[in-house]
Amino acid sequence: MTIGLAIEAATTRHMLDVDGMSRLEIELILDRAVEMRAARAAREHRSLLERETVGLAFYETSTRTRVSFELAAKALGATVVDLGIAGSSVVKGESLVDTLRTLERTGVTTLVLRHSASGAPYLAARATGMSVVNAGDGVHAHPTQALLDALTLREALGPLDGRTVAIIGGVAHSRVARSNLHSLVTLGAQIRIAGPREWVEGFGTWPGVTVAPSLEDAVRGADAVMTLRVQVERLSTEVTDFSLADYIRAWRLDEPRMRLAAPLAPVLHPGPTNEGVEITLELANGPRSLIGRQVENGVPVRMAVLAAAAGMPGVA
Amino acid sequence: MTIGLAIEAATTRHMLDVDGMSRLEIELILDRAVEMRAARAAREHRSLLERETVGLAFYETSTRTRVSFELAAKALGATVVDLGIAGSSVVKGESLVDTLRTLERTGVTTLVLRHSASGAPYLAARATGMSVVNAGDGVHAHPTQALLDALTLREALGPLDGRTVAIIGGVAHSRVARSNLHSLVTLGAQIRIAGPREWVEGFGTWPGVTVAPSLEDAVRGADAVMTLRVQVERLSTEVTDFSLADYIRAWRLDEPRMRLAAPLAPVLHPGPTNEGVEITLELANGPRSLIGRQVENGVPVRMAVLAAAAGMPGVA
Amino acid sequence: MTIGLAIEAATTRHMLDVDGMSRLEIELILDRAVEMRAARAAREHRSLLERETVGLAFYETSTRTRVSFELAAKALGATVVDLGIAGSSVVKGESLVDTLRTLERTGVTTLVLRHSASGAPYLAARATGMSVVNAGDGVHAHPTQALLDALTLREALGPLDGRTVAIIGGVAHSRVARSNLHSLVTLGAQIRIAGPREWVEGFGTWPGVTVAPSLEDAVRGADAVMTLRVQVERLSTEVTDFSLADYIRAWRLDEPRMRLAAPLAPVLHPGPTNEGVEITLELANGPRSLIGRQVENGVPVRMAVLAAAAGMPGVA
Repeated sequence: MTIGLAIEAATTRHMLDVDGMSRLEIELILDRAVEMRAARAAREHRSLLERETVGLAFYETSTRTRVSFELAAKALGATVVDLGIAGSSVVKGESLVDTLRTLERTGVTTLVLRHSASGAPYLAARATGMSVVNAGDGVHAHPTQALLDALTLREALGPLDGRTVAIIGGVAHSRVARSNLHSLVTLGAQIRIAGPREWVEGFGTWPGVTVAPSLEDAVRGADAVMTLRVQVERLSTEVTDFSLADYIRAWRLDEPRMRLAAPLAPVLHPGPTNEGVEITLELANGPRSLIGRQVENGVPVRMAVLAAAAGMPGVA
Repeated sequence: MTIGLAIEAATTRHMLDVDGMSRLEIELILDRAVEMRAARAAREHRSLLERETVGLAFYETSTRTRVSFELAAKALGATVVDLGIAGSSVVKGESLVDTLRTLERTGVTTLVLRHSASGAPYLAARATGMSVVNAGDGVHAHPTQALLDALTLREALGPLDGRTVAIIGGVAHSRVARSNLHSLVTLGAQIRIAGPREWVEGFGTWPGVTVAPSLEDAVRGADAVMTLRVQVERLSTEVTDFSLADYIRAWRLDEPRMRLAAPLAPVLHPGPTNEGVEITLELANGPRSLIGRQVENGVPVRMAVLAAAAGMPGVA
Repeated sequence: MTIGLAIEAATTRHMLDVDGMSRLEIELILDRAVEMRAARAAREHRSLLERETVGLAFYETSTRTRVSFELAAKALGATVVDLGIAGSSVVKGESLVDTLRTLERTGVTTLVLRHSASGAPYLAARATGMSVVNAGDGVHAHPTQALLDALTLREALGPLDGRTVAIIGGVAHSRVARSNLHSLVTLGAQIRIAGPREWVEGFGTWPGVTVAPSLEDAVRGADAVMTLRVQVERLSTEVTDFSLADYIRAWRLDEPRMRLAAPLAPVLHPGPTNEGVEITLELANGPRSLIGRQVENGVPVRMAVLAAAAGMPGVA
């Protein structure tokens, strides 16, 4: 019950960003996700969202996020309709707002939106009456990813108060990193980021965040390490005098480097991985890796978010 | 009960065109749509079509029409399968008839077909035993759009007997306009059309239709005005010595021009709009606009059509 | 009950190939398919797979196979999620194994995989814990097609012991033909294959298979004839000094050539047909044709396969 109200008060039942969510709100969603995981396994709550129609509007390709939302919505009995991308009237040059208003008029109650334009979900929330769940917008935010990362870390480490999490790579253009900076700091963690200068500078002024000069400095003593997918085409255009080989030499996470971290410190990656680039195959598939667990947590976290967006009272 | 029989007698339970439907048949569908809207809100008839399998075959892209049919079918409990476009064996050059016969053999009972070839739904109806619902074929017909327009107008104006509706734009290549000419005249309205000469000539011989020499002549005293999406590429090839600027000057609907119409006369557009081209942003989003209402009426009208196509007896 | 166990013992509840299935296993699946057809018509077993989530991963386009699997899964109450192709993260260069592991982590229990790489389903079965159903892999195998062909032949001819089936065309690169060679011989049939030399040589050493020097030699006295879709682009690159006209002259199946076969001998084709190339329009649509029946048998055979893959005990 509190969840619905908290979400409503904070964001009018949208899930646009973790920025602005209180620690209590985040923790309630994580608790709800744990309940949802058990409910899914027990085939409970199969009709919790039977009055809702969830529209999937993915303007950028995605397998894991779209499938994860679709299965979350279906597990709760919502009607699901996929807008499609290539097969949509966006081809005709219809504006985003017109498309979304049309969706709303057909009866869609919750919009799950992935868009290359930072801020698109805010536009959707202002222009329509649907509950909007941000499934990733440009370089801005990816709140459900941050929430599933938080759940994964909490399950691995316990409460995050006083814990140190290192984030390695292109933070500046990573919506995943940006949302994690907010949520992990809100949950009490300290963040150290490291990567090519162009990709990390400026973040040192964020509360709870420090910029480390090297991967080694970031990882040393960290309780967990998250590394980000390298977008190779950005590397050549945004980073001065830097090749992919340079990147691998300086910033690829591997087992020897992980030995600088706390014993058994886990590794996270939002996927899909470029194995051999930002992380070694061995590490990605080794005992430290929580990558599979992150994906697994996607469905229950999104069940919790969709239920909260629909104003459902607490489950337990 | 009568609806099923009437549809069956008229078109063997297809919905290929409004041409050939009697006034009674059209009005029964509109009445049924009103019932369907209430039923959807009350979550009734959730298993009315549980024995039906609805196949969506959209060979042209569409957001609103496909989503509207999909939600209509799901609201009545039908199994829905989307043929896809890019992902279909049409890529291999398989003929339309072969593809549709295959769909039928897999158990699809109702085919919703959108195709760029005028007449394709008639071919489908002849070549297969499925109920065929035309979701727009070439420049020929778009019967469910005409039915939702009729419902929207009836709800705004009451019975259409003796009412005048102006239709502005490229009537000659608009399946929406063509179907509306049939249905609105059948429902008792007088139609005035206006647009570039190449796009309206010849329609003056249709019963109930007159061609006006200018937008102003068409709109003057009209009880409602429908304007059509401009296909800019057609403008340059089909209309002699005419630019987009000329079009806007002569044929764009705006508030001052609407003041020539009856007081409070509403404006319709089948969407998606080219705002600033055939209609001003102000008008499209203003109090006269029924554009959103048209979209809203799409789902219940298609529920009514799918139920009739499946031979369902009357609901009330 | 036995089916589940047999499948499990043979292939750990995957359906990767008919190669390796015993006659008993094949016949149990065919018997189960007959039950499934009746169950579907009677709307029984609507929740048999309600605990399963079936993921459709079609890396090659297909209408009939994808729709057939989707309707089979839905008829048994499974949750279905379509990976998409163009709209998937394969665009980002994610590896097949990563994508499939992700699907598994989201809760997909049965993977239906179509892929251009021969062996891909084996990779999927090794790399994940999902039940894998091969929906066609490269030039290797298409087991559900072979099973539906076997059902179609059994219904037309009775038991296949001692029957002769001719297969005409590009056997070497046809996964359909390859799987049929295994299943039909296992069911007791003799196979005669014929086609351009480059496309049939080497198969004479397979048990139960002989290579005939001409179409006429293959068809003469045959109890049934299957012809394969010509891939025209292969014809020009793989077959020496041979044009499409040559192909038609030597290898196109028509009614006069069919008169060499047993009286009323039926004709099969996996579809979609190139009418006029490997088969005449007359024959494909005439009384000998079982092509439509093959498609019809697709859904119940796939219901049987999905149920067996899920470890469901026998139905009857």
